[in-house]
Amino acid sequence: MPLSPEQLSEIEAQRALSQPTRRAVSPGIEQHLYTAFGVLDHGFVRVIDYMGDDAAICQAARVSYGRGTKSVQNDEGLIRYLMRHWHSTPFEMCEIKLHVKLPVFVARQWIRHRTANVNEYSARYSILDREFYIPEPDHVNAQSTVNNQGRGGVLEGAEAARVLEILKADSARAYDNYEAMISQDGQAGLARELARMNLPANIYTQWYWKVDLHNLFHFLRLRADAHAQYEIRVYADQICRLVADWVPFAYRAFEDYRLGGAQLSAPALDCVRRMLRGETVDQENSGMSKGEWREFEAALGR
Amino acid sequence: MPLSPEQLSEIEAQRALSQPTRRAVSPGIEQHLYTAFGVLDHGFVRVIDYMGDDAAICQAARVSYGRGTKSVQNDEGLIRYLMRHWHSTPFEMCEIKLHVKLPVFVARQWIRHRTANVNEYSARYSILDREFYIPEPDHVNAQSTVNNQGRGGVLEGAEAARVLEILKADSARAYDNYEAMISQDGQAGLARELARMNLPANIYTQWYWKVDLHNLFHFLRLRADAHAQYEIRVYADQICRLVADWVPFAYRAFEDYRLGGAQLSAPALDCVRRMLRGETVDQENSGMSKGEWREFEAALGR
Amino acid sequence: MPLSPEQLSEIEAQRALSQPTRRAVSPGIEQHLYTAFGVLDHGFVRVIDYMGDDAAICQAARVSYGRGTKSVQNDEGLIRYLMRHWHSTPFEMCEIKLHVKLPVFVARQWIRHRTANVNEYSARYSILDREFYIPEPDHVNAQSTVNNQGRGGVLEGAEAARVLEILKADSARAYDNYEAMISQDGQAGLARELARMNLPANIYTQWYWKVDLHNLFHFLRLRADAHAQYEIRVYADQICRLVADWVPFAYRAFEDYRLGGAQLSAPALDCVRRMLRGETVDQENSGMSKGEWREFEAALGR
Amino acid sequence: MPLSPEQLSEIEAQRALSQPTRRAVSPGIEQHLYTAFGVLDHGFVRVIDYMGDDAAICQAARVSYGRGTKSVQNDEGLIRYLMRHWHSTPFEMCEIKLHVKLPVFVARQWIRHRTANVNEYSARYSILDREFYIPEPDHVNAQSTVNNQGRGGVLEGAEAARVLEILKADSARAYDNYEAMISQDGQAGLARELARMNLPANIYTQWYWKVDLHNLFHFLRLRADAHAQYEIRVYADQICRLVADWVPFAYRAFEDYRLGGAQLSAPALDCVRRMLRGETVDQENSGMSKGEWREFEAALGR
Repeated sequence: MPLSPEQLSEIEAQRALSQPTRRAVSPGIEQHLYTAFGVLDHGFVRVIDYMGDDAAICQAARVSYGRGTKSVQNDEGLIRYLMRHWHSTPFEMCEIKLHVKLPVFVARQWIRHRTANVNEYSARYSILDREFYIPEPDHVNAQSTVNNQGRGGVLEGAEAARVLEILKADSARAYDNYEAMISQDGQAGLARELARMNLPANIYTQWYWKVDLHNLFHFLRLRADAHAQYEIRVYADQICRLVADWVPFAYRAFEDYRLGGAQLSAPALDCVRRMLRGETVDQENSGMSKGEWREFEAALGR
Repeated sequence: MPLSPEQLSEIEAQRALSQPTRRAVSPGIEQHLYTAFGVLDHGFVRVIDYMGDDAAICQAARVSYGRGTKSVQNDEGLIRYLMRHWHSTPFEMCEIKLHVKLPVFVARQWIRHRTANVNEYSARYSILDREFYIPEPDHVNAQSTVNNQGRGGVLEGAEAARVLEILKADSARAYDNYEAMISQDGQAGLARELARMNLPANIYTQWYWKVDLHNLFHFLRLRADAHAQYEIRVYADQICRLVADWVPFAYRAFEDYRLGGAQLSAPALDCVRRMLRGETVDQENSGMSKGEWREFEAALGR
Repeated sequence: MPLSPEQLSEIEAQRALSQPTRRAVSPGIEQHLYTAFGVLDHGFVRVIDYMGDDAAICQAARVSYGRGTKSVQNDEGLIRYLMRHWHSTPFEMCEIKLHVKLPVFVARQWIRHRTANVNEYSARYSILDREFYIPEPDHVNAQSTVNNQGRGGVLEGAEAARVLEILKADSARAYDNYEAMISQDGQAGLARELARMNLPANIYTQWYWKVDLHNLFHFLRLRADAHAQYEIRVYADQICRLVADWVPFAYRAFEDYRLGGAQLSAPALDCVRRMLRGETVDQENSGMSKGEWREFEAALGR
Repeated sequence: MPLSPEQLSEIEAQRALSQPTRRAVSPGIEQHLYTAFGVLDHGFVRVIDYMGDDAAICQAARVSYGRGTKSVQNDEGLIRYLMRHWHSTPFEMCEIKLHVKLPVFVARQWIRHRTANVNEYSARYSILDREFYIPEPDHVNAQSTVNNQGRGGVLEGAEAARVLEILKADSARAYDNYEAMISQDGQAGLARELARMNLPANIYTQWYWKVDLHNLFHFLRLRADAHAQYEIRVYADQICRLVADWVPFAYRAFEDYRLGGAQLSAPALDCVRRMLRGETVDQENSGMSKGEWREFEAALGR
C-alpha cells in the first residue's frame, strides 16, 4: 500500500486540521480519521467521516431533546436491549464514510450489499494504476473438497509457485497491453472505457463507501464470518477494529448478540431441550439433516 | 411550539458545548444546530447532526485523498456539472439528521419517502402530548373545483368559523377521552397501544429523520412544490433554508436545475422549436392534451 | 368486512376469468386470488398478483436456463439450505401483491417496513368510508405492568364497556363532523386534504402492497411474533396462511429456521454448553442480565 | 450467443408449457417469454417472468377492487397523467425478471442500480465458460477528445487490428491459465474463488435481474441514452423493445416524457422566454456556462 508522497501529504494536511463543532464527537474514531490502514498487499481502509456515537443511538431511540440517556450505564443497557430485540432504526442513526482500496473481485462481492452509498474511481474517465493483488503463499489454497464454494488446504511448493508465477505474469502482460492500447504516442489511442476490459479481476480499484451502522453490522456479520472469502474477510476484520473504537457499546452488543451468537432452528431448540432433560440425541433422532446436525454441533462447540 | 423549560435547557446545554473535530465542518449549518425552528402552530424542525459539506461532494466524486477540488471555484463548477448530468452518488455522500415535530397527517405523507432513516416517538410506549394542529383562518380552504386533490379559495367567515370550532372541539374531546381511558385512577387503565386509536390525525407526533442529500433534494423538489399540500410545504420550505446554509453550492444548483427548472416532453420540445421558427402553435396543433398544454404554457410563463 | 355488491361482482368477474400463461404458476395461491379474507371487524387481505413459486427460488439460485433443480426433493433441500445460510437473494425472486384494508394505526406500523411498494387510497382525493375499528371485548386490554409497550389482562366489565362506548361515540362524532365540513350543501365545503385531519386512527384505510418474499418473511417474523400488537399480528397470521399455500417449501423452512427458532447470544451459547456438561447455571452466574436470562429460559421452554 | 443443445431444449420445454392463470396476462410479452434475444457477441436478454400490465398500473393507482379504469382509453390517459406528474408508485406495481448474459465490465456498471434483485452466477462455486467480448471493428473507438468519459471516432486499420489482436490473445491466455490453475490433473487444483481473479473484465457472466417498472424506466433513461457506453446501451435498447410489448401505454408515455424529453434549468427556461419574445440570446448573455449552452442548443435541436 505505498501511497505517493503527494497523497501522504494530502492526508497529513487533513489530519493536522482541527475545527470546533457542536456535533457529537467520538474520540475513539477521531484519532483514526484519514489514516490508511493497510489491507492485503496494496489495499487500505480509511475513515473519511462519521456521524454519531453510542449516545446518539440512545438519543434517537428516545426521540430526545438532549443527548442519550441520563447515565452512561443506562446507555449501554439500552443499546444491548435494542440489539437483542432487533430494533434496527436507532442503529441506522449512525453513519460512517470509508475510502477503500480493494481488488475488483472483492469489490464485486462487496457491492452486493445495496443499502450503502458508493462512488467508485472511474476507469471510463481515468487510467487505473499498475497494482494487482498477488496472494501471500500461505493464502494460495486448493479448492475445498467438502464445500463447493470454499477453499481447502494451502497449495504445496511447486504448484503454489506456478500459480503465483501465472498471476504475476498475466497481470503484468495485461497492464502492459492496457497501456499500449491507450497510448497516444504515434496512434489515436483506444478509449479508456474499452481498454479497461483487458484488465483482470485482481487489479485494484477504490471507492468511497458510506453506510449506516445497522447495515454495516449486517455486512460485518456476513463478511467477518469464517465462511467469507479470506480476501474480503480481512477488510471486514479491519473495519470491526475501527467500529469498536467508534461506538464501543454498540460493537460489544454486536459481538455478543450477532458475531458470537447463533440462530438455532425449531428442531435444534427441541434437541437442546431434550439433551438438557438427559436424553441422548444424535443426528438420526434429531430431525435434522446431516448438514444441519454438523452445524448444530459446531454451534454447541462439540 | 412551546418547548418546556427542561427541553429548552437540554437544547441550550448541547448548543453551548463545542469540541474539536478533524471532520469536514460547515459553518453555515453549525450555527443552526439543535435550534428548534417553528413550523405551523406547534411543530418544528431541528438539525441534530450532519455529515459533509460542498467540498465533500467533490471529494467523493473524485475519490480523493484530500478534500475537494483545488479551488473553491472549481468546486462549484463540478457540483453544477454533477447536478445537471444526474450524477446522484456524490450528493449521497452528505447526510443530515433532523428532529421534526409534525401533525400525524403530515407524517403519513412524509414517510412515503422510503430512502431515509426514521425513529418515531412511540405511542405504544409513551403518552402523547395534548397538541393539535388547528389551521390559521387564512389556510382554511375549500375543496378545489379544478384539481381533485387540491384546495381552492379560503373559506368565508361563518363556514370557516364552524370548521375551526369543530376541529378544536373534536380534538379536545378526543384527548380528554384518551386520558380518561388510560387513567389508572380507580380503574386498570387501557393499554396505550389501544387508546391511541382515538386520537385524530391533527395530533402532533415527532421523529428523528436522517437522509442523504440526494434523497433530500428529491423530497424537497416534490414537497416544496406549489402543488404540495400547504402543511407539508412549510416544512420543506424551512428545510430548504437550512440546506442553503449547509451546502450553498449544491443548493444553488438544485434551485437552478430542479426547483426552478421544468421537464419538457418530446412534444413540448417540438412545439418550442416550431415557435422559435416563427410558427403559431396552439393547443390544437400542439399534439398535447389540454392539461399538458396548460402546464406547458405555465412553464413558459405565458 | 361488508363489501358492496358492486365490489363483490368486480371480484367475481376477475375470479371467473382464466387465461393461459407460460409463466410459473402456483396452484396453491391461484385458488385464493382476489378473494377478500376478513381480518378484524372491517379489514381484509386479498392476493392481487404473485410472481414465482418454490421452483423459481431454485431456478434463480442456479441462474438456470430451465426451471428449478431436477427433482422436487432437491428443490426442498436447496431451499432449506439457502434459508439456513441466510442467502436472501433467491427469495427476493418471488413477489406478491396484496390489497389490504386496515385501521390507520396499524397502517402506520406496517409502513415502517420500507422495502415494499405501496399505493394507498388517497384521502386528499377521495372521501373515506364510515368504517372504524372497534375491538372485540376480549381484545380490550389493560396497559402491561411488566412491558412498557405491551398490554396486560383483559379489562373488566364496566371499564371495558366505557372504553367501547367512548371509541364508538368519538368515531361517530368525528365522522359526522368530517361529513359536515366537506358537505357542499349550502356552503363551499372544506378541502378533503384538510377535513381528513379530524378522523381518528381507528378509521380504516386501504392500500396495494407489493413485496418480495425475502422482505415479506422479515415482516412476518416481526409481526407474526407474540410480541407484536394483536391488531397487526392478525394480518400477519392471515398472510402466513396464504404464503404457506403459495410457496410451501419456503414457508416450511421459514417456520423451522425463523419463526420457530431463536437467536442465542454468545453468553447464552456458553450457558448451554455449561449446562450440557452438567453445570448448574442460574442467572447470577450466567453472565446475562435478568431480562436476557428470562428470554433465554423462555427459548429453552423452561 | 451459441446456447448448448441442452440449454435450448430446456428453453423450448418451458416455452411449450402453458397453464391457466387468473392473474393479469400481457399477451405482448407472453410471446417473448424465455426466448434469448442476442446482444453483443455472446450476450443475451431473456424474460423469465413478469407481473402486471398497463391495466394493473391503473388498478393500483385507484386501489381498485377490479381491474384498471372502465375503458382502455381512460387507462392510457391516466398512465400519461401519472408519468407526467412524477407519480412513481403505480409503476412500481409492475415487475419483470430477466436472465441476462453480459461482460463483467458491463455488469459492474449495471449493478450500480441498487433498487433491483440480483442472483449472479457464482465463480466461487462454478467454473466460468470460455466466452469473451471482442468488439466489432466499427465499435473500436479512440478516446474522446472533448469528453473525458466517452469515445471518439472509430480507430483506423492497423491500430484497430492491434487492439483486437491484443484482446483476443490476452483473453485466450488468461483463460488457458485459469484452466491450468484449477485443473486437478496431477495437482491439487487452485480454489475457484482465487483462480477467477486471473480473468479479464471482458469475460461473460450472467444473472437473474428483477426490477419494478419505475426503477426499470430510471435505468433505461440513463442507459438507453446517447451518452451511455455503447456496450450497456445495446442491452438497454433490447429491453426497451421488450417493455414496449409488455406495457405499451406506459412505454409510450416514457418515450414522450422521459426518453425524448429534456430537463430545462431555470436559466434555460428564461432564455426560451426571451427568445420567444424576439430577443437575440447567445451564450454570453444567457447566464449559462459554455457547456450548459451547448446542451441547451442541442435540446432545442439547433
